[in-house]
Amino acid sequence: MLNKPLSRRDVLKMAGVGGLGLLLGGGAAGALFTGTQAVARRKNVLNAGRAHRAAYPFYGEHQSGIITPSQNFLCFASFDLTATKLDEVRALFKKWTTAAASMTQGAMLGNESTNTNPNLPPADTGEAAGLIPSKITITFGVGPSFFDSRFGLAAKRPAAFPDLPKFRGDALQPQWCGGDIGVQVCADDLQVAFHAVRNLARLARGTAVLRWTQEGFQRTTAAEPTAGTPRNLMGFKDGTGNPDVNNAAQMKQVVWVQPEDGASWMANGSYMVVRRIRMRLEVWDRSTLDDQQQTFGRYRDSGAPLGARDEFDPLDLSAKDEAGKPVIPLNAHSRLAHMEGKTKLLRRAYSYSSGLDLKTGQLDAGLMFICYQRNIKQQFIAMQEILAAEDKLNEYITHVGSASFACFPGVAEGGYIGDRLF
Amino acid sequence: MLNKPLSRRDVLKMAGVGGLGLLLGGGAAGALFTGTQAVARRKNVLNAGRAHRAAYPFYGEHQSGIITPSQNFLCFASFDLTATKLDEVRALFKKWTTAAASMTQGAMLGNESTNTNPNLPPADTGEAAGLIPSKITITFGVGPSFFDSRFGLAAKRPAAFPDLPKFRGDALQPQWCGGDIGVQVCADDLQVAFHAVRNLARLARGTAVLRWTQEGFQRTTAAEPTAGTPRNLMGFKDGTGNPDVNNAAQMKQVVWVQPEDGASWMANGSYMVVRRIRMRLEVWDRSTLDDQQQTFGRYRDSGAPLGARDEFDPLDLSAKDEAGKPVIPLNAHSRLAHMEGKTKLLRRAYSYSSGLDLKTGQLDAGLMFICYQRNIKQQFIAMQEILAAEDKLNEYITHVGSASFACFPGVAEGGYIGDRLF
Repeated sequence: MLNKPLSRRDVLKMAGVGGLGLLLGGGAAGALFTGTQAVARRKNVLNAGRAHRAAYPFYGEHQSGIITPSQNFLCFASFDLTATKLDEVRALFKKWTTAAASMTQGAMLGNESTNTNPNLPPADTGEAAGLIPSKITITFGVGPSFFDSRFGLAAKRPAAFPDLPKFRGDALQPQWCGGDIGVQVCADDLQVAFHAVRNLARLARGTAVLRWTQEGFQRTTAAEPTAGTPRNLMGFKDGTGNPDVNNAAQMKQVVWVQPEDGASWMANGSYMVVRRIRMRLEVWDRSTLDDQQQTFGRYRDSGAPLGARDEFDPLDLSAKDEAGKPVIPLNAHSRLAHMEGKTKLLRRAYSYSSGLDLKTGQLDAGLMFICYQRNIKQQFIAMQEILAAEDKLNEYITHVGSASFACFPGVAEGGYIGDRLF
Repeated sequence: MLNKPLSRRDVLKMAGVGGLGLLLGGGAAGALFTGTQAVARRKNVLNAGRAHRAAYPFYGEHQSGIITPSQNFLCFASFDLTATKLDEVRALFKKWTTAAASMTQGAMLGNESTNTNPNLPPADTGEAAGLIPSKITITFGVGPSFFDSRFGLAAKRPAAFPDLPKFRGDALQPQWCGGDIGVQVCADDLQVAFHAVRNLARLARGTAVLRWTQEGFQRTTAAEPTAGTPRNLMGFKDGTGNPDVNNAAQMKQVVWVQPEDGASWMANGSYMVVRRIRMRLEVWDRSTLDDQQQTFGRYRDSGAPLGARDEFDPLDLSAKDEAGKPVIPLNAHSRLAHMEGKTKLLRRAYSYSSGLDLKTGQLDAGLMFICYQRNIKQQFIAMQEILAAEDKLNEYITHVGSASFACFPGVAEGGYIGDRLF
């Protein structure tokens, strides 16, 4: 967890009374960067002003950005490799490791000399100069196509990482699908997130190219005591039923690949599914509140399950009304997604808005659904097969994009992203 | 100007010690909503949790969102009228006035009954429920096409509001151009801004349809003492040379239409130009720091003019280096945009990022350039003709979208948007 952010003035004050040690020693483990990084950062000319706050660690047992509480913005980037040799891929991941470790601590890429030499393109593109790290996380994974014949890694593909089937109702468009490598960048500042994707793409030149990117957002006032669970663009709270990221046992059970799962290079990693889900907002906006609430099986205002009072009340799936009809309809989204409590996954969704659909003149807006799990077949695929077949919400949504990525375990300092696979 | 935001806890504390009057009476004029609105808001069921803070007034001499300090996000919406009668347009503007006045104060559209009647579509789409107003401003204008033969208003078109000419290098795409009505929505929360555009579009059903929309962003950590002038996606500070919005005399001279300008319905209004400017970031990122600095005529790190030390140092256009060459090149962007200090306009620009250009695989990202002025011909057109012909920056940018709007004066309470035109 993060501490309450410190302002630059707080930092100076603390340094004044207790020396720098107070700052570096304080706070929950991992929430603040190390002394070495702090010194490196301070030397960076363009970065001199960044306050020492709100940084998640890049190195660790797990990648950040998975059980990390959702930041306000997403920049998702899918890459295709143009390289033909595994060595080139390895070199890219090494470069990306160094870059991601810097950017998550709010540092510029390169150093003073590579950013101020007039005869070179600057090492860092500069648009995040002076900005705080903004809780940025950069999470890397590889797609099914990474395990084709190009790099000799077919035998390493985990059984828990199959291709996604075509689900009923899918209307996938190639420009929002797939990719050899997926990078989920999240931050509380969209400019900071954009900067990371752009600089990773720049470092990949000659080795990989962007296949698709998509920005996403949540409300930016999450710090408000009244903000509560974010609402999606249908006006309903989204994420109420998520497992508890503070429950380590549950995270092991639901999210983190375990040694006994096979594919040992993935232990402590997680499988990600991304779906770009277009919402037919104009149609939704013409349906009655009752229709909307029956669709989700929850009240719009409170987020409580139908028949219950509070957002976090359990779903009573057996409750019947006076006429003997289920209070939560059999095809309600929350009932189906609940999977009788047996199958869970960790959702990490963002809204997106991408202007108008030129063909229809309607809003191209909806949900960048992202989820993490230990086994894609037993979790996402099992759940989505049921939702695709029965969910009343399907009247109002269309899945237009789809990708899945095996997200590596965390990187130890001195290692690089994916080092356990190669 | 806004006060320092109050948290909900602050509000309760103040109410405890001094009663509600303290809150309503305190602060700079216009920064807090009126008592009547506060009561209306508290009655609104979905909105009960919104903290009382960070709201700009909707009613007033001028529209908010013009000389208002830039919020972090933009949702720009251009509409085309499908109505055939002026009465329908007037009715739309009346509906929009009520809606905009509510939304800028953080209230939901409609009332408790229209938002909780199960048999009706809710009056408000709900995704901003519980969120604070986030400094949202909603600024309305009408385009040149509004004055064609449809509504009998051709004679009211101001001379200071001509069609934009085709500038050298323009590569305009119809999907980013024009519109009968332009609405600039800005807020510190993108979800709040999106909510406003969507609900305005919904209220317009049967009268007007969206023609194009575009989101934009700046860094969200503007409150940081180190944030300074925002940087554009080229990594340079953007807006350094802007006139001072706190200088009322200068605003009269540069931004606000004056009674002697003709078109009396526009007095205290302002003319807006919007240009969607694509940046060729991949090319920019390969050019040297020296090239980049010569292009802007400023240092990337400090934002100071070449040859000067501080960001706000004046441009010394006559300075020569030892070889007798101008220190600030003759084709540098800052030199040309400076117009020898004679022509100014008020810039209010946002970065945009809209995924990949499917044809080239490159980032579709750049600048939503928005500016306000008293006379489009003498200000934007005069400046852009020079920039289009000579600016070194043209190697790296392409204007792909363009629109202009006559933004009405402010609305008095009891009036409606555009009432002085009709």
